[in-house]
Amino acid sequence: MPDLTAGMDEGVCVPRGFRAGAAAAEVREDGDAARLDVAIVASERAATGAGVFTRNTVKAAPVVISQLTLRRREPVFAVVINAGNANACTGPQGLRDALVMCTTAADALSVDPGQVLVCSTGVIGRPLPMQRVTAGVRAAAAALDVRCDRAARAIMTTDTRPKIASATFRVGGVGYAAGGIAKGAGMMHPDLATLLGIVTTDANIDAATLQPIVSRIADRTFNSITIDGDTSTNDSVILLANGAAGGGPLEAGSTGAAAFEECLGEVCESLAEQIVADAEGASRYFRVVVTGSTSDSDARAAALTVAESPLVKTAVSGADPNWGRIVAALGRSGASFTLDRCRIAIGGIAVFERGAPCLDDLESVRTAMARTRVDIDVDLGAGDGRAHAWGCELTADYVRINADYTT
Amino acid sequence: MPDLTAGMDEGVCVPRGFRAGAAAAEVREDGDAARLDVAIVASERAATGAGVFTRNTVKAAPVVISQLTLRRREPVFAVVINAGNANACTGPQGLRDALVMCTTAADALSVDPGQVLVCSTGVIGRPLPMQRVTAGVRAAAAALDVRCDRAARAIMTTDTRPKIASATFRVGGVGYAAGGIAKGAGMMHPDLATLLGIVTTDANIDAATLQPIVSRIADRTFNSITIDGDTSTNDSVILLANGAAGGGPLEAGSTGAAAFEECLGEVCESLAEQIVADAEGASRYFRVVVTGSTSDSDARAAALTVAESPLVKTAVSGADPNWGRIVAALGRSGASFTLDRCRIAIGGIAVFERGAPCLDDLESVRTAMARTRVDIDVDLGAGDGRAHAWGCELTADYVRINADYTT
Repeated sequence: MPDLTAGMDEGVCVPRGFRAGAAAAEVREDGDAARLDVAIVASERAATGAGVFTRNTVKAAPVVISQLTLRRREPVFAVVINAGNANACTGPQGLRDALVMCTTAADALSVDPGQVLVCSTGVIGRPLPMQRVTAGVRAAAAALDVRCDRAARAIMTTDTRPKIASATFRVGGVGYAAGGIAKGAGMMHPDLATLLGIVTTDANIDAATLQPIVSRIADRTFNSITIDGDTSTNDSVILLANGAAGGGPLEAGSTGAAAFEECLGEVCESLAEQIVADAEGASRYFRVVVTGSTSDSDARAAALTVAESPLVKTAVSGADPNWGRIVAALGRSGASFTLDRCRIAIGGIAVFERGAPCLDDLESVRTAMARTRVDIDVDLGAGDGRAHAWGCELTADYVRINADYTT
Repeated sequence: MPDLTAGMDEGVCVPRGFRAGAAAAEVREDGDAARLDVAIVASERAATGAGVFTRNTVKAAPVVISQLTLRRREPVFAVVINAGNANACTGPQGLRDALVMCTTAADALSVDPGQVLVCSTGVIGRPLPMQRVTAGVRAAAAALDVRCDRAARAIMTTDTRPKIASATFRVGGVGYAAGGIAKGAGMMHPDLATLLGIVTTDANIDAATLQPIVSRIADRTFNSITIDGDTSTNDSVILLANGAAGGGPLEAGSTGAAAFEECLGEVCESLAEQIVADAEGASRYFRVVVTGSTSDSDARAAALTVAESPLVKTAVSGADPNWGRIVAALGRSGASFTLDRCRIAIGGIAVFERGAPCLDDLESVRTAMARTRVDIDVDLGAGDGRAHAWGCELTADYVRINADYTT
């Protein structure tokens, strides 16, 4: 189990040539003037950009702008982010405001406005308070530093702690790094609490090679966690690769690209686990590993269906080894399997085997179900496909938090 | 709004030639010897059967048996049902037990075992207590009556009240009726609380005509309600048509068949609303009507996504007119639309129009959100497609109920 105490990890600033800055700009209008809510992650040199964005057809203005920018496949230099206001459902004014955020950051960094990406998270349907936002962007640009903990805090909404991770790899004698910061995926009052991830690397890699790698990694990390099944209008994962480590370009299909993909996977997996471990109204979470499926996509459907099931989530909340709920979720997932070859283990202890429950050691299973992180392993006994998904407990607190807010 | 107080409606016994019976057989093993838990719905004459069953690939034994029986398209005489034990995940023994239920009912009714359908609902993974079950089946057969309230109670698990409905129609001077009983769809401890519906009609209609009508009606009624998104291993809706009204056969595509379909739709819609109004841990529910979609299937996806969204469900619980959560759910539903043509009304009052919120009359909207039944109407402004779905509030009670049970 990875160490989830972020602390001293410099995240996006571990790869060479990246700096991060943050500022408190009162975007949130909650009266807390000291709360950080604007961040910039910037590269000293032109970087390749790639991204994965919400599949919600209602896309916030910053998502539209960042997607258009990345589609050009031109070098980028920075990502500017604000929390407290999602700039979603804000019409043409929202697009103008997102562009002004890019322009303001670009001016401060002496780059072109088309070389800056933008993300927002927070309440939807309200115009950005642009005077305060632009002041914040300038202040964040003036505060660029080789530490990223302030930037990681600035992008938080309902998160209780910042999410930071990094990892390194070597190819042909050159040492590389990848690092990231992220914020939580739970949806909460009054925000649609967006998933944001900003990841950096000092590898040299072109956009055509980078984008499919980012898409694959996002699918098996950020897109394999589920808090409540809802999808924000603002979800964005952006990667900048600036080549500052000095190695030659990592070509698609090379062992170098494979090493990079593995390293990036480590960083994103750690961020994803940190997000699910900090889900709203939840203090415990679980991982569902499905093996023995007829295909990886079947395994993924099975793992996600179990992770999303309200009944499995409440079972985790109650530390109840209710295998019937897991079986029912597997059965409606669309994955093909026969029950008499299926094996389910909780915390490494079998609870269901060959079509029948085996709860001989019920107390040990209950103990495993009560851990902060619960491991559910399913072997469908039907093939070689495998996948995993992360879920969190569903608590009465989640409901209370989301019901009690009044628009 | 239909009258949801079932009371005096004789449901499955309104169509001529049908009787219902119930017995208390202690299938539940909860110490309550007086609680009804076995029911029979029987036709005096051979009836055409049709059914719609769970799409869960893990199917309980009675589902397997009833599907095989219906596939033969031979006349049937009865449905035998038990509550308290789902006879699911019970292996070959479960299949034998389901067949014994059919045989016992068939003997008591003097028909062939292959002419009896079977349903079970309750806890999964435990063998049926067959001695008590068979005694109960015989007692229920001996108690056949033209009232169905005891049978409607006998099939309840976590339901707080029986669900009964009926309607009539006329074709060519002949009066016909359809009637039904049902039980709830919420999943709850320790059961996977299955949706069961038994519907009867005295129309004369062959299996090839009947089955597609039942499938269509089930799709827009029972399959358009959502409690928690989970699907039971036992869900079954069974229809018996015995022709006792005396009219000629209703041919596929005739106005008579259309009148029958409309009548059946009324009965199933009422049962579906009664089910969602009695969802576990919920006292309030809502209907989402989507119009102006590019297709009916898009509209259905949109309506179901809104009805299933935990955030919309908690908003209903908190009487919060949070249009942003509805927009976000529509956006991830896969339905094609543009936000600036979308209109959302709650209780008939517009809250979102032309891409922007319009909460001028917030107090009236809050009042509408606080009703027992909340109406959410969405016009996507993109075409003529329409559909609706039923959802219920998500409450802290639901979580408490499902978390506190220990296997």
